[in-house]
Amino acid sequence: MKIDCRLLIRIGCGSTKVRASFCSYRKPLKRRLAVVPQGGNTGLVGGSVPVFNEVIINMASMDKIISLDKVNGILTCEAGCILENLNNYLTSEGFIMPLDLGAKGSCQIGGNVSTNAGGLRFIRYGSLHGNILGLEVVLANGTVLDMLGTLRKDNTGYDLKHLFIGSEGSLGIVTKVSILTPAKLLSTNLAFLACNDYLSCQKLLFEAKRELGEVLSAFEFMDSHAIDLVLGHLEGLRNPLPTSSYKFYVLIETTGSDESYDKAKLEAFLLHSMECALVSDGVIAQDISQASTFWRIREGISEASVKLGAVYKYDLSLPVEKLYDIVEEMSQRLGDVAKVVGYGHLGDGNLHLNILTAEYSDDILAKIEPFVYEWTSMHRGSISAEHGLGLMKADKIHYSKSSETVQLMASIKKLLDPNCILNPYKVLPQSVL
Amino acid sequence: MKIDCRLLIRIGCGSTKVRASFCSYRKPLKRRLAVVPQGGNTGLVGGSVPVFNEVIINMASMDKIISLDKVNGILTCEAGCILENLNNYLTSEGFIMPLDLGAKGSCQIGGNVSTNAGGLRFIRYGSLHGNILGLEVVLANGTVLDMLGTLRKDNTGYDLKHLFIGSEGSLGIVTKVSILTPAKLLSTNLAFLACNDYLSCQKLLFEAKRELGEVLSAFEFMDSHAIDLVLGHLEGLRNPLPTSSYKFYVLIETTGSDESYDKAKLEAFLLHSMECALVSDGVIAQDISQASTFWRIREGISEASVKLGAVYKYDLSLPVEKLYDIVEEMSQRLGDVAKVVGYGHLGDGNLHLNILTAEYSDDILAKIEPFVYEWTSMHRGSISAEHGLGLMKADKIHYSKSSETVQLMASIKKLLDPNCILNPYKVLPQSVL
Repeated sequence: MKIDCRLLIRIGCGSTKVRASFCSYRKPLKRRLAVVPQGGNTGLVGGSVPVFNEVIINMASMDKIISLDKVNGILTCEAGCILENLNNYLTSEGFIMPLDLGAKGSCQIGGNVSTNAGGLRFIRYGSLHGNILGLEVVLANGTVLDMLGTLRKDNTGYDLKHLFIGSEGSLGIVTKVSILTPAKLLSTNLAFLACNDYLSCQKLLFEAKRELGEVLSAFEFMDSHAIDLVLGHLEGLRNPLPTSSYKFYVLIETTGSDESYDKAKLEAFLLHSMECALVSDGVIAQDISQASTFWRIREGISEASVKLGAVYKYDLSLPVEKLYDIVEEMSQRLGDVAKVVGYGHLGDGNLHLNILTAEYSDDILAKIEPFVYEWTSMHRGSISAEHGLGLMKADKIHYSKSSETVQLMASIKKLLDPNCILNPYKVLPQSVL
Repeated sequence: MKIDCRLLIRIGCGSTKVRASFCSYRKPLKRRLAVVPQGGNTGLVGGSVPVFNEVIINMASMDKIISLDKVNGILTCEAGCILENLNNYLTSEGFIMPLDLGAKGSCQIGGNVSTNAGGLRFIRYGSLHGNILGLEVVLANGTVLDMLGTLRKDNTGYDLKHLFIGSEGSLGIVTKVSILTPAKLLSTNLAFLACNDYLSCQKLLFEAKRELGEVLSAFEFMDSHAIDLVLGHLEGLRNPLPTSSYKFYVLIETTGSDESYDKAKLEAFLLHSMECALVSDGVIAQDISQASTFWRIREGISEASVKLGAVYKYDLSLPVEKLYDIVEEMSQRLGDVAKVVGYGHLGDGNLHLNILTAEYSDDILAKIEPFVYEWTSMHRGSISAEHGLGLMKADKIHYSKSSETVQLMASIKKLLDPNCILNPYKVLPQSVL
């Protein structure tokens, strides 16, 4: 991969001065220069890095909140707004963003849309395809496509905005977003639980969906390697269940509108789960500070995993019943040379598989790939649950999608971007373009 | 409109015999005969009717349930399954369909997907774009496109299934569906409330989203004309609030996991709303029978509206604050010649506007259209919230979508169906094809 030169254009709009620069990103497009749209640059698959001579279009200065419809909870903003800033603004108005990620402090909403970000609130509020109400998008020929509606229902023709959600900037550049934001509910409770085996985690998920029903807002899991990693390498954290060591840990969050009732509900669920022996031990956070410590453990895994040396990261969707098998098989396959860590959004069937070694080695990579992709494909999983394909996995798309589907994707790419100037070399293999 | 001949092909699959007929729908496609896919035929905009010599592809015999993943609540079935049958099956397994419509007894899931059906549970579970996990689709060239995944998260390439959701069979024929189904919650409560003015309905919606939060599952409204129509023309129904007459009525449903708590919550909300004078009177259904009577009033409006003579039906999305203005303006505009009825899914900003006259007249139509479309367009609404465009409104698309957007829709139609044989004359105006 050779980077010859990179021209950075900042995009903004609003004032006269800024309107000029708003238009400036259309110049390279009109001149058929290849461009790479770049948000917070927090992606893990190389979706926002230039490969050869592409112009980087940096969206950071398009960070205005345009409007908030307080009756319906609909936020309209520019694509460069940082997720955490949007959430802070909404919280002060009685709403929240329907998505939450570890990278919230730097990722931008345009990037979230372009990568169809999932994250921690997915189990409660679902995917961006359900929450994005409208988009403004710049096409490869410089046309600004106004689909910035704020209606919950609109069945007038094809719902084209979905083409751009998750297409990683390769079909158009998202410049404005309108999004449905749920009401901020006042009562949040968080339990940190231990399970002795993976089957108990699964059964606990099933029971939580039934018993906690409408208040369940997160169901995260991590294995003991993930916990050891965080506690061993991040400062100031300790295991909330210190007396013994368990194989699996689960974080269950509920969010509702009635503090005392919601807490009692979670306590009753925890008690019942312990009586049924689904849960071996557990604790409910007593205050915000303890809750944020619990979350810090879960969210710190990614940060801690790089401290050992090299990390091979995989982001898989799998049927929940099979989800942990790949961690165990990979661990056996690699033996002592690597530590295999499994964690993720169990409630959404999403495993983050991290393989840690002292240093990077082609031999180890050859043992991991294509095995991990073949295994996932064989179980009808997805080789990229929420990280996208970007540059690193563009050639792997056939593990998750049929060749007819990939062919249709390529036709649509060629229709919208005939000169292949939008985020080239990403998402689709060059062989189909 | 001239119908010369209609050839009906029934589609099914499973046995050897049926597999032959499963393939039979590919024959007309391969011979470039124009086809009209037809589900329950319950649409209101002529989306499933042939215009000239199209072959009707009737999906009724593709009615098998393929699988139910009980851990994750994912149903996979053929496109001809009737919505109510699916819901009954799921209920016995502890789940429900995420959508519910008045036409549930005859509409089919393939048609629901193809028209992106909204309905009564939308406020709780959101749109089909958020709930459909996978589709199998037959393309215009006869290719079967397998996108029948059952994963909640999958970011490997463009999420093409969204192109087919809501495209009314004009880009492909939906043959199989996998859909996320929520757990059936045991406690349902329903309140029938009266408000004196529209502003109170709006404020009540805002409060209900806050106070009832996670259990709110429907917020429907109807004006006094709608109620009078139902009570006057359907047998065995009476106003649950008989002592006086109010201008607006609201149905609020909650669905949760705790019977006594949920009921107390709704009662407290009702009491508080009456104290604040948002609600003038109200009653909570005491049993299932009374609840189904309340729903019968709301769902009977469409049936009752045809009893007077002719009905001009419109299905609009509008900002909630403006939503009832069009009913009042239309009523003033038409004077004594028509009764203007407004009702719908207020929680989703979706108004069903029915204009009733003794008999059909071009003069009256000329007073309604294009006024109703221009008004909606001026307020950035949608001229078809959940009914689609079909044959009747294909030429009206410009009232809700920009010409660049319509142009891109046409390009995609031409890419996927270059000979225009899939449900011709529907969705898009002929002038752009």
